Amino acid sequence: MAVGIFDSGLGGLTVYDAVSKRLPDVPLVYFGDNAHAPYGVRTADDIYNLTTSAVERLWEAGCDLVILACNTASAAALRRMQESWIPPEKRVLGVFVPLIEALTERQWGDNSPPREVAVKHIALFATPATVASRAFQRELAFRAIGVDVEAQACGGVVDAIEEGDMILADALVRSHVDALKRKMPTPDAAILGCTHYPIMETAFQEALGEDVRVFSQANLVAESLADYLARHPKMLGEGTESLFLTTGDPAKVSRGATQFLRRKVEFTKA
Amino acid sequence: MAVGIFDSGLGGLTVYDAVSKRLPDVPLVYFGDNAHAPYGVRTADDIYNLTTSAVERLWEAGCDLVILACNTASAAALRRMQESWIPPEKRVLGVFVPLIEALTERQWGDNSPPREVAVKHIALFATPATVASRAFQRELAFRAIGVDVEAQACGGVVDAIEEGDMILADALVRSHVDALKRKMPTPDAAILGCTHYPIMETAFQEALGEDVRVFSQANLVAESLADYLARHPKMLGEGTESLFLTTGDPAKVSRGATQFLRRKVEFTKA
Repeated sequence: MAVGIFDSGLGGLTVYDAVSKRLPDVPLVYFGDNAHAPYGVRTADDIYNLTTSAVERLWEAGCDLVILACNTASAAALRRMQESWIPPEKRVLGVFVPLIEALTERQWGDNSPPREVAVKHIALFATPATVASRAFQRELAFRAIGVDVEAQACGGVVDAIEEGDMILADALVRSHVDALKRKMPTPDAAILGCTHYPIMETAFQEALGEDVRVFSQANLVAESLADYLARHPKMLGEGTESLFLTTGDPAKVSRGATQFLRRKVEFTKA
Repeated sequence: MAVGIFDSGLGGLTVYDAVSKRLPDVPLVYFGDNAHAPYGVRTADDIYNLTTSAVERLWEAGCDLVILACNTASAAALRRMQESWIPPEKRVLGVFVPLIEALTERQWGDNSPPREVAVKHIALFATPATVASRAFQRELAFRAIGVDVEAQACGGVVDAIEEGDMILADALVRSHVDALKRKMPTPDAAILGCTHYPIMETAFQEALGEDVRVFSQANLVAESLADYLARHPKMLGEGTESLFLTTGDPAKVSRGATQFLRRKVEFTKA
Protein backbone atom coordinates (compact mmCIF):
# COMPACT_ATOMS: atom_id res chain seq x y z
CA MET A 1 0.00 0.00 0.00
CA ALA A 2 1.11 3.49 -0.81
CA VAL A 3 0.07 6.85 0.62
CA GLY A 4 -2.00 8.98 -1.78
CA ILE A 5 -1.53 12.74 -2.09
CA PHE A 6 -4.26 14.67 -3.87
CA ASP A 7 -4.25 18.25 -5.12
CA SER A 8 -6.19 20.15 -7.79
CA GLY A 9 -2.85 21.11 -9.35
CA LEU A 10 0.84 21.28 -8.57
CA GLY A 11 0.82 23.08 -5.20
CA GLY A 12 0.47 19.77 -3.35
CA LEU A 13 3.94 18.81 -4.59
CA THR A 14 5.31 20.79 -1.61
CA VAL A 15 3.47 18.27 0.59
CA TYR A 16 4.78 15.40 -1.54
CA ASP A 17 8.28 16.82 -1.13
CA ALA A 18 8.02 17.21 2.66
CA VAL A 19 6.52 13.71 3.07
CA SER A 20 9.13 12.05 0.85
CA LYS A 21 11.92 13.70 2.87
CA ARG A 22 10.36 12.82 6.26
CA LEU A 23 9.39 9.27 5.22
CA PRO A 24 11.80 8.25 2.44
CA ASP A 25 10.73 4.57 2.62
CA VAL A 26 7.01 5.17 2.07
CA PRO A 27 5.76 4.75 -1.52
CA LEU A 28 3.63 7.73 -2.61
CA VAL A 29 1.07 8.26 -5.36
CA TYR A 30 0.45 11.90 -6.32
CA PHE A 31 -2.79 12.78 -8.12
CA GLY A 32 -3.09 16.24 -9.70
CA ASP A 33 -6.53 17.12 -11.08
CA ASN A 34 -4.97 19.60 -13.48
CA ALA A 35 -7.81 19.24 -16.02
CA HIS A 36 -10.19 20.85 -13.51
CA ALA A 37 -7.85 23.27 -11.70
CA PRO A 38 -8.20 25.77 -10.15
CA TYR A 39 -10.83 24.60 -7.65
CA GLY A 40 -11.07 28.01 -5.92
CA VAL A 41 -13.67 29.21 -8.41
CA ARG A 42 -15.95 26.12 -8.34
CA THR A 43 -19.11 25.42 -6.35
CA ALA A 44 -18.93 23.27 -3.21
CA ASP A 45 -20.87 20.44 -4.94
CA ASP A 46 -18.52 20.47 -7.88
CA ILE A 47 -15.47 20.36 -5.59
CA TYR A 48 -17.05 17.50 -3.61
CA ASN A 49 -17.64 15.46 -6.79
CA LEU A 50 -14.17 16.08 -8.21
CA THR A 51 -12.47 15.34 -4.89
CA THR A 52 -14.35 12.08 -4.26
CA SER A 53 -13.55 10.90 -7.83
CA ALA A 54 -9.88 11.62 -7.28
CA VAL A 55 -9.84 9.87 -3.90
CA GLU A 56 -11.54 6.80 -5.46
CA ARG A 57 -8.83 6.74 -8.13
CA LEU A 58 -6.18 6.80 -5.38
CA TRP A 59 -7.94 3.96 -3.54
CA GLU A 60 -7.85 1.95 -6.80
CA ALA A 61 -4.10 2.68 -6.94
CA GLY A 62 -3.79 0.97 -3.53
CA CYS A 63 -3.71 4.03 -1.27
CA ASP A 64 -5.85 3.36 1.83
CA LEU A 65 -4.57 6.59 3.32
CA VAL A 66 -5.05 9.74 1.26
CA ILE A 67 -3.90 13.26 2.08
CA LEU A 68 -5.96 16.10 0.62
CA ALA A 69 -3.05 18.45 -0.08
CA CYS A 70 -5.49 21.06 -1.33
CA ASN A 71 -6.84 23.78 0.92
CA THR A 72 -9.90 24.34 -1.22
CA ALA A 73 -10.90 20.65 -1.21
CA SER A 74 -10.13 20.37 2.51
CA ALA A 75 -12.28 23.41 3.22
CA ALA A 76 -15.18 22.55 0.92
CA ALA A 77 -15.41 18.75 0.88
CA LEU A 78 -13.59 16.96 3.71
CA ARG A 79 -16.20 17.28 6.49
CA ARG A 80 -18.94 16.04 4.17
CA MET A 81 -16.75 13.13 3.00
CA GLN A 82 -15.96 12.15 6.59
CA GLU A 83 -19.59 12.31 7.69
CA SER A 84 -21.01 9.82 5.22
CA TRP A 85 -18.70 8.71 2.46
CA ILE A 86 -15.35 7.33 3.66
CA PRO A 87 -15.52 3.59 4.56
CA PRO A 88 -14.08 2.59 7.97
CA GLU A 89 -10.95 0.92 6.55
CA LYS A 90 -9.85 4.09 4.70
CA ARG A 91 -8.39 7.35 6.00
CA VAL A 92 -8.52 10.80 4.39
CA LEU A 93 -6.44 13.55 6.03
CA GLY A 94 -6.81 17.26 5.24
CA VAL A 95 -4.26 20.03 5.44
CA PHE A 96 -6.03 22.33 7.91
CA VAL A 97 -6.26 19.98 10.85
CA PRO A 98 -2.52 19.23 11.31
CA LEU A 99 -1.90 22.97 11.18
CA ILE A 100 -4.53 23.73 13.81
CA GLU A 101 -3.31 20.86 15.98
CA ALA A 102 0.20 22.30 15.85
CA LEU A 103 -1.08 25.78 16.72
CA THR A 104 -3.20 24.48 19.60
CA GLU A 105 -0.63 21.87 20.69
CA ARG A 106 -3.03 18.96 20.34
CA GLN A 107 -2.58 15.36 19.29
CA TRP A 108 -4.33 14.10 16.19
CA GLY A 109 -7.87 13.05 17.11
CA ASP A 110 -8.01 15.03 20.36
CA ASN A 111 -11.62 16.22 20.20
CA SER A 112 -11.83 17.80 23.64
CA PRO A 113 -13.60 21.18 23.95
CA PRO A 114 -11.90 24.38 22.77
CA ARG A 115 -9.35 25.79 25.23
CA GLU A 116 -6.97 28.71 25.63
CA VAL A 117 -3.73 28.47 23.68
CA ALA A 118 -0.38 30.26 23.80
CA VAL A 119 -0.66 32.03 20.45
CA LYS A 120 -3.19 34.86 20.62
CA HIS A 121 -2.64 36.82 17.41
CA ILE A 122 -2.44 34.74 14.26
CA ALA A 123 -1.75 36.02 10.75
CA LEU A 124 -3.25 33.81 8.05
CA PHE A 125 -1.84 34.07 4.53
CA ALA A 126 -3.87 32.22 1.90
CA THR A 127 -5.45 32.54 -1.54
CA PRO A 128 -8.50 34.81 -1.94
CA ALA A 129 -10.74 31.70 -2.20
CA THR A 130 -9.45 30.11 1.01
CA VAL A 131 -9.72 33.40 2.91
CA ALA A 132 -13.29 33.87 1.65
CA SER A 133 -14.26 30.32 2.74
CA ARG A 134 -13.41 31.12 6.40
CA ALA A 135 -12.77 27.36 6.82
CA PHE A 136 -9.59 27.91 8.80
CA GLN A 137 -11.27 30.24 11.29
CA ARG A 138 -14.16 27.75 11.64
CA GLU A 139 -11.87 24.77 12.32
CA LEU A 140 -9.82 26.84 14.76
CA ALA A 141 -12.94 27.90 16.68
CA PHE A 142 -13.68 24.21 17.40
CA ARG A 143 -10.34 23.87 19.18
CA ALA A 144 -9.20 27.20 20.63
CA ILE A 145 -10.72 30.19 22.40
CA GLY A 146 -9.52 33.77 22.68
CA VAL A 147 -7.55 33.65 19.44
CA ASP A 148 -7.58 36.59 17.05
CA VAL A 149 -7.02 35.70 13.38
CA GLU A 150 -6.28 38.35 10.76
CA ALA A 151 -6.39 37.00 7.20
CA GLN A 152 -4.52 38.37 4.20
CA ALA A 153 -5.67 37.22 0.76
CA CYS A 154 -2.39 37.02 -1.16
CA GLY A 155 -3.58 37.60 -4.72
CA GLY A 156 -0.97 37.08 -7.42
CA VAL A 157 1.49 34.95 -5.46
CA VAL A 158 0.37 31.58 -6.87
CA ASP A 159 0.36 32.99 -10.44
CA ALA A 160 3.90 34.34 -9.99
CA ILE A 161 5.15 31.00 -8.59
CA GLU A 162 3.49 29.07 -11.41
CA GLU A 163 5.06 31.43 -13.96
CA GLY A 164 8.42 30.82 -12.27
CA ASP A 165 9.01 34.55 -11.58
CA MET A 166 10.44 34.24 -8.06
CA ILE A 167 11.59 37.88 -7.94
CA LEU A 168 7.98 38.95 -8.46
CA ALA A 169 6.67 36.33 -6.02
CA ASP A 170 9.11 37.62 -3.39
CA ALA A 171 8.02 41.25 -3.92
CA LEU A 172 4.33 40.31 -3.75
CA VAL A 173 4.85 38.32 -0.52
CA ARG A 174 6.53 41.32 1.11
CA SER A 175 3.69 43.65 0.03
CA HIS A 176 1.08 41.25 1.43
CA VAL A 177 3.00 40.93 4.72
CA ASP A 178 3.12 44.75 4.94
CA ALA A 179 -0.65 44.87 4.30
CA LEU A 180 -1.25 42.29 7.06
CA LYS A 181 0.92 44.26 9.50
CA ARG A 182 -1.16 47.40 8.89
CA LYS A 183 -4.13 45.38 10.21
CA MET A 184 -2.24 43.39 12.92
CA PRO A 185 1.10 45.02 13.81
CA THR A 186 2.50 42.24 16.03
CA PRO A 187 1.25 38.73 15.23
CA ASP A 188 2.58 35.88 17.43
CA ALA A 189 2.39 33.34 14.64
CA ALA A 190 1.83 33.19 10.92
CA ILE A 191 0.18 30.45 8.94
CA LEU A 192 1.02 29.77 5.31
CA GLY A 193 -2.41 28.45 4.31
CA CYS A 194 -1.67 27.53 0.70
CA THR A 195 0.36 24.59 -0.50
CA HIS A 196 2.31 26.84 -2.90
CA TYR A 197 3.65 29.07 -0.14
CA PRO A 198 6.33 26.82 1.41
CA ILE A 199 8.38 27.73 -1.68
CA MET A 200 8.29 31.35 -0.42
CA GLU A 201 8.78 30.55 3.29
CA THR A 202 12.06 32.50 3.55
CA ALA A 203 10.43 35.63 2.11
CA PHE A 204 7.50 35.34 4.56
CA GLN A 205 9.84 34.79 7.54
CA GLU A 206 12.12 37.70 6.58
CA ALA A 207 9.22 40.10 6.01
CA LEU A 208 7.51 39.06 9.26
CA GLY A 209 10.69 39.19 11.35
CA GLU A 210 12.34 36.42 13.33
CA ASP A 211 10.02 36.78 16.37
CA VAL A 212 7.03 35.48 14.41
CA ARG A 213 6.77 31.71 14.24
CA VAL A 214 5.82 30.63 10.72
CA PHE A 215 3.70 27.46 10.39
CA SER A 216 3.95 25.81 7.00
CA GLN A 217 1.48 23.08 6.07
CA ALA A 218 3.81 20.80 4.15
CA ASN A 219 6.06 19.99 7.13
CA LEU A 220 3.17 19.75 9.57
CA VAL A 221 1.31 17.31 7.33
CA ALA A 222 4.49 15.21 6.98
CA GLU A 223 4.86 15.15 10.79
CA SER A 224 1.20 14.19 11.32
CA LEU A 225 1.56 11.42 8.78
CA ALA A 226 4.78 10.10 10.39
CA ASP A 227 3.00 10.04 13.79
CA TYR A 228 0.00 8.27 12.35
CA LEU A 229 2.02 5.64 10.48
CA ALA A 230 4.11 4.94 13.59
CA ARG A 231 0.84 4.15 15.39
CA HIS A 232 -0.72 2.27 12.44
CA PRO A 233 2.11 0.34 10.77
CA LYS A 234 -0.44 -1.79 8.85
CA MET A 235 -1.26 1.20 6.64
CA LEU A 236 2.28 0.98 5.29
CA GLY A 237 3.27 -0.76 2.09
CA GLU A 238 6.50 -1.85 0.51
CA GLY A 239 8.65 -0.39 -2.21
CA THR A 240 9.70 3.22 -2.55
CA GLU A 241 8.58 3.87 -6.12
CA SER A 242 6.49 7.03 -6.37
CA LEU A 243 3.86 7.51 -9.04
CA PHE A 244 2.50 10.80 -10.42
CA LEU A 245 -0.96 10.86 -12.01
CA THR A 246 -2.75 13.75 -13.68
CA THR A 247 -6.11 14.31 -15.36
CA GLY A 248 -4.39 16.95 -17.52
CA ASP A 249 -1.83 16.71 -20.33
CA PRO A 250 1.03 14.60 -18.84
CA ALA A 251 3.79 16.28 -20.92
CA LYS A 252 2.67 19.80 -19.96
CA VAL A 253 2.07 18.90 -16.31
CA SER A 254 5.49 17.17 -16.10
CA ARG A 255 7.19 20.33 -17.40
CA GLY A 256 5.34 22.49 -14.86
CA ALA A 257 6.06 20.08 -12.01
CA THR A 258 9.75 19.85 -12.89
CA GLN A 259 10.00 23.65 -12.81
CA PHE A 260 7.95 23.85 -9.60
CA LEU A 261 9.99 21.28 -7.66
CA ARG A 262 13.29 22.06 -9.43
CA ARG A 263 13.87 18.37 -10.14
CA LYS A 264 12.66 15.93 -12.77
CA VAL A 265 9.09 14.70 -12.23
CA GLU A 266 7.27 12.48 -14.74
CA PHE A 267 3.46 12.40 -14.73
CA THR A 268 1.28 9.78 -16.44
CA LYS A 269 -2.41 9.98 -17.38
CA ALA A 270 -4.72 9.18 -14.43
CA MET B 1 -32.61 56.98 -25.06
CA ALA B 2 -29.74 56.42 -22.65
CA VAL B 3 -26.32 54.82 -23.16
CA GLY B 4 -25.90 51.45 -21.43
CA ILE B 5 -22.69 50.43 -19.70
CA PHE B 6 -22.29 46.77 -18.84
CA ASP B 7 -19.73 45.09 -16.59
CA SER B 8 -19.62 41.80 -14.68
CA GLY B 9 -18.94 43.82 -11.52
CA LEU B 10 -17.81 47.24 -10.38
CA GLY B 11 -14.70 47.78 -12.52
CA GLY B 12 -16.80 49.27 -15.34
CA LEU B 13 -17.62 52.19 -13.05
CA THR B 14 -14.30 53.72 -14.16
CA VAL B 15 -15.79 53.77 -17.68
CA TYR B 16 -19.07 55.18 -16.30
CA ASP B 17 -17.06 57.87 -14.52
CA ALA B 18 -15.02 58.84 -17.61
CA VAL B 19 -18.13 58.90 -19.83
CA SER B 20 -20.17 60.98 -17.38
CA LYS B 21 -17.33 63.53 -17.17
CA ARG B 22 -16.79 63.65 -20.95
CA LEU B 23 -20.54 63.69 -21.76
CA PRO B 24 -22.31 65.18 -18.73
CA ASP B 25 -25.60 65.60 -20.63
CA VAL B 26 -25.95 61.96 -21.70
CA PRO B 27 -28.19 59.79 -19.48
CA LEU B 28 -26.44 56.50 -18.56
CA VAL B 29 -27.66 53.13 -17.33
CA TYR B 30 -25.04 50.99 -15.60
CA PHE B 31 -25.64 47.22 -15.33
CA GLY B 32 -23.40 45.18 -13.00
CA ASP B 33 -23.83 41.41 -13.17
CA ASN B 34 -22.51 41.07 -9.64
CA ALA B 35 -24.47 37.87 -9.00
CA HIS B 36 -22.31 36.08 -11.61
CA ALA B 37 -18.98 37.90 -11.18
CA PRO B 38 -16.16 37.28 -11.76
CA TYR B 39 -16.46 36.25 -15.40
CA GLY B 40 -12.74 35.45 -15.75
CA VAL B 41 -13.29 31.92 -14.53
CA ARG B 42 -16.31 31.04 -16.70
CA THR B 43 -16.56 29.23 -20.04
CA ALA B 44 -16.97 31.23 -23.26
CA ASP B 45 -20.56 29.93 -23.71
CA ASP B 46 -21.46 30.94 -20.21
CA ILE B 47 -20.00 34.42 -20.71
CA TYR B 48 -21.86 34.75 -24.03
CA ASN B 49 -25.20 33.84 -22.40
CA LEU B 50 -24.72 36.16 -19.41
CA THR B 51 -23.56 39.04 -21.60
CA THR B 52 -26.42 38.77 -24.10
CA SER B 53 -28.96 38.64 -21.21
CA ALA B 54 -27.46 41.78 -19.71
CA VAL B 55 -27.45 43.59 -23.04
CA GLU B 56 -31.11 42.65 -23.60
CA ARG B 57 -31.93 44.10 -20.18
CA LEU B 58 -30.18 47.35 -21.17
CA TRP B 59 -32.12 47.44 -24.47
CA GLU B 60 -35.33 47.09 -22.42
CA ALA B 61 -34.14 50.05 -20.34
CA GLY B 62 -34.01 52.11 -23.55
CA CYS B 63 -30.31 51.89 -24.34
CA ASP B 64 -29.82 51.34 -28.09
CA LEU B 65 -26.09 51.83 -27.62
CA VAL B 66 -24.37 49.58 -25.08
CA ILE B 67 -20.73 49.63 -24.02
CA LEU B 68 -19.27 46.34 -22.81
CA ALA B 69 -17.05 47.81 -20.10
CA CYS B 70 -15.76 44.34 -19.30
CA ASN B 71 -12.58 43.00 -20.84
CA THR B 72 -13.59 39.39 -20.32
CA ALA B 73 -16.98 39.83 -22.06
CA SER B 74 -15.38 41.89 -24.84
CA ALA B 75 -12.76 39.19 -25.38
CA ALA B 76 -15.06 36.17 -25.13
CA ALA B 77 -18.43 37.29 -26.51
CA LEU B 78 -18.38 40.48 -28.59
CA ARG B 79 -17.26 39.06 -31.96
CA ARG B 80 -19.86 36.30 -31.76
CA MET B 81 -22.58 38.82 -30.78
CA GLN B 82 -21.65 41.11 -33.69
CA GLU B 83 -21.62 38.26 -36.22
CA SER B 84 -25.17 37.08 -35.71
CA TRP B 85 -27.03 38.50 -32.75
CA ILE B 86 -27.11 42.31 -32.66
CA PRO B 87 -29.99 43.79 -34.74
CA PRO B 88 -29.04 46.57 -37.21
CA GLU B 89 -30.63 49.39 -35.16
CA LYS B 90 -28.54 48.59 -32.06
CA ARG B 91 -24.83 49.15 -31.32
CA VAL B 92 -22.58 47.28 -28.89
CA LEU B 93 -19.09 48.70 -28.35
CA GLY B 94 -16.30 46.80 -26.58
CA VAL B 95 -13.34 48.12 -24.62
CA PHE B 96 -10.51 46.63 -26.70
CA VAL B 97 -11.24 48.29 -30.01
CA PRO B 98 -11.04 51.96 -28.90
CA LEU B 99 -7.74 51.12 -27.23
CA ILE B 100 -6.32 49.48 -30.33
CA GLU B 101 -7.62 52.31 -32.53
CA ALA B 102 -5.82 54.81 -30.30
CA LEU B 103 -2.62 52.76 -30.42
CA THR B 104 -2.78 52.37 -34.19
CA GLU B 105 -4.11 55.91 -34.78
CA ARG B 106 -7.22 54.75 -36.62
CA GLN B 107 -10.77 56.01 -36.74
CA TRP B 108 -13.58 53.84 -35.45
CA GLY B 109 -14.70 51.45 -38.18
CA ASP B 110 -11.50 51.75 -40.25
CA ASN B 111 -11.15 48.13 -41.38
CA SER B 112 -8.22 48.58 -43.76
CA PRO B 113 -5.43 45.95 -43.69
CA PRO B 114 -2.87 45.93 -40.87
CA ARG B 115 -0.10 48.50 -41.21
CA GLU B 116 3.04 49.67 -39.42
CA VAL B 117 2.47 51.89 -36.39
CA ALA B 118 4.66 54.23 -34.34
CA VAL B 119 4.62 52.21 -31.12
CA LYS B 120 6.75 49.09 -31.46
CA HIS B 121 7.07 47.75 -27.92
CA ILE B 122 3.85 47.57 -25.96
CA ALA B 123 3.47 46.51 -22.34
CA LEU B 124 0.05 45.05 -21.59
CA PHE B 125 -1.11 44.95 -17.95
CA ALA B 126 -4.27 42.92 -17.36
CA THR B 127 -5.82 40.26 -15.17
CA PRO B 128 -4.53 36.66 -15.47
CA ALA B 129 -7.77 35.71 -17.35
CA THR B 130 -7.45 38.50 -19.93
CA VAL B 131 -3.76 37.76 -20.49
CA ALA B 132 -4.53 34.06 -20.95
CA SER B 133 -7.28 34.84 -23.49
CA ARG B 134 -4.76 36.57 -25.83
CA ALA B 135 -7.74 38.59 -27.17
CA PHE B 136 -5.82 41.86 -27.13
CA GLN B 137 -2.93 40.44 -29.15
CA ARG B 138 -5.42 38.90 -31.61
CA GLU B 139 -7.32 42.18 -32.16
CA LEU B 140 -4.07 44.10 -32.48
CA ALA B 141 -2.78 41.68 -35.12
CA PHE B 142 -5.79 42.58 -37.32
CA ARG B 143 -4.71 46.23 -37.34
CA ALA B 144 -0.95 46.55 -36.88
CA ILE B 145 2.23 44.79 -38.00
CA GLY B 146 5.67 44.67 -36.45
CA VAL B 147 4.42 45.30 -32.93
CA ASP B 148 5.87 43.41 -29.99
CA VAL B 149 3.51 42.94 -27.02
CA GLU B 150 4.74 41.74 -23.63
CA ALA B 151 1.92 40.91 -21.22
CA GLN B 152 2.05 41.00 -17.43
CA ALA B 153 -0.73 39.21 -15.54
CA CYS B 154 -1.24 41.49 -12.54
CA GLY B 155 -2.56 39.01 -9.97
CA GLY B 156 -3.81 40.55 -6.73
CA VAL B 157 -4.35 44.12 -7.94
CA VAL B 158 -8.14 43.83 -8.45
CA ASP B 159 -8.54 42.11 -5.06
CA ALA B 160 -6.55 44.87 -3.33
CA ILE B 161 -8.61 47.62 -5.04
CA GLU B 162 -11.88 45.86 -4.16
CA GLU B 163 -10.74 45.53 -0.54
CA GLY B 164 -9.93 49.25 -0.58
CA ASP B 165 -6.27 48.71 0.40
CA MET B 166 -4.68 51.25 -1.95
CA ILE B 167 -1.27 51.05 -0.26
CA LEU B 168 -1.17 47.34 -1.13
CA ALA B 169 -2.56 47.95 -4.64
CA ASP B 170 0.19 50.53 -5.21
CA ALA B 171 2.93 48.14 -4.04
CA LEU B 172 1.57 45.30 -6.20
CA VAL B 173 1.39 47.56 -9.28
CA ARG B 174 5.05 48.54 -8.82
CA SER B 175 6.10 44.88 -8.45
CA HIS B 176 4.22 43.92 -11.62
CA VAL B 177 5.78 46.85 -13.54
CA ASP B 178 9.22 45.69 -12.35
CA ALA B 179 8.40 42.15 -13.54
CA LEU B 180 7.33 43.49 -16.94
CA LYS B 181 10.53 45.51 -17.26
CA ARG B 182 12.64 42.40 -16.65
CA LYS B 183 10.99 40.98 -19.80
CA MET B 184 10.81 44.26 -21.81
CA PRO B 185 13.21 46.91 -20.44
CA THR B 186 12.04 49.87 -22.56
CA PRO B 187 8.39 49.74 -23.70
CA ASP B 188 7.13 52.65 -25.85
CA ALA B 189 3.59 52.41 -24.54
CA ALA B 190 1.68 50.68 -21.80
CA ILE B 191 -1.90 49.52 -21.87
CA LEU B 192 -4.00 49.24 -18.73
CA GLY B 193 -6.19 46.36 -19.96
CA CYS B 194 -8.53 46.07 -16.98
CA THR B 195 -11.30 48.48 -16.07
CA HIS B 196 -10.13 48.56 -12.42
CA TYR B 197 -6.68 49.90 -13.31
CA PRO B 198 -7.49 53.57 -14.11
CA ILE B 199 -7.77 53.95 -10.33
CA MET B 200 -4.04 53.04 -10.17
CA GLU B 201 -2.94 55.02 -13.24
CA THR B 202 -0.58 57.29 -11.29
CA ALA B 203 1.20 54.28 -9.79
CA PHE B 204 1.58 52.68 -13.23
CA GLN B 205 2.87 55.93 -14.78
CA GLU B 206 5.36 56.57 -11.96
CA ALA B 207 6.70 53.01 -12.01
CA LEU B 208 7.00 53.00 -15.82
CA GLY B 209 8.61 56.45 -16.02
CA GLU B 210 7.36 59.54 -17.82
CA ASP B 211 8.70 58.44 -21.25
CA VAL B 212 6.15 55.62 -21.46
CA ARG B 213 2.74 56.66 -22.73
CA VAL B 214 0.02 54.99 -20.67
CA PHE B 215 -3.24 54.13 -22.46
CA SER B 216 -6.20 53.74 -20.14
CA GLN B 217 -9.42 52.24 -21.44
CA ALA B 218 -11.90 54.42 -19.55
CA ASN B 219 -10.86 57.70 -21.21
CA LEU B 220 -10.44 56.12 -24.65
CA VAL B 221 -13.91 54.58 -24.52
CA ALA B 222 -15.37 57.96 -23.46
CA GLU B 223 -13.61 59.63 -26.43
CA SER B 224 -14.81 56.97 -28.90
CA LEU B 225 -18.33 57.37 -27.60
CA ALA B 226 -18.21 61.18 -27.86
CA ASP B 227 -17.00 60.83 -31.48
CA TYR B 228 -19.70 58.35 -32.31
CA LEU B 229 -22.52 60.38 -30.74
CA ALA B 230 -21.36 63.53 -32.56
CA ARG B 231 -21.76 61.60 -35.82
CA HIS B 232 -25.01 59.84 -34.76
CA PRO B 233 -27.00 62.39 -32.74
CA LYS B 234 -30.16 60.25 -33.09
CA MET B 235 -28.72 57.73 -30.63
CA LEU B 236 -28.91 60.42 -27.95
CA GLY B 237 -31.75 60.81 -25.51
CA GLU B 238 -32.90 63.45 -23.07
CA GLY B 239 -32.50 63.84 -19.34
CA THR B 240 -29.35 63.38 -17.31
CA GLU B 241 -30.59 60.95 -14.69
CA SER B 242 -28.31 57.92 -14.41
CA LEU B 243 -29.53 54.52 -13.28
CA PHE B 244 -27.52 51.72 -11.65
CA LEU B 245 -28.78 48.15 -11.95
CA THR B 246 -27.31 44.99 -10.43
CA THR B 247 -28.16 41.28 -10.42
CA GLY B 248 -26.57 41.10 -6.96
CA ASP B 249 -27.63 42.44 -3.57
CA PRO B 250 -28.31 46.17 -4.17
CA ALA B 251 -27.32 47.25 -0.63
CA LYS B 252 -24.02 45.39 -0.73
CA VAL B 253 -23.23 46.46 -4.31
CA SER B 254 -24.06 50.10 -3.47
CA ARG B 255 -21.62 50.02 -0.54
CA GLY B 256 -18.86 48.55 -2.74
CA ALA B 257 -19.56 51.02 -5.56
CA THR B 258 -19.54 53.99 -3.20
CA GLN B 259 -16.15 52.90 -1.85
CA PHE B 260 -14.85 52.18 -5.37
CA LEU B 261 -15.86 55.54 -6.89
CA ARG B 262 -15.42 57.51 -3.65
CA ARG B 263 -18.87 59.06 -4.02
CA LYS B 264 -22.39 57.93 -3.27
CA VAL B 265 -23.84 55.44 -5.79
CA GLU B 266 -27.23 53.76 -5.32
CA PHE B 267 -27.94 50.48 -7.15
CA THR B 268 -31.38 48.90 -7.64
CA LYS B 269 -32.25 45.31 -8.53
CA ALA B 270 -31.97 44.61 -12.29
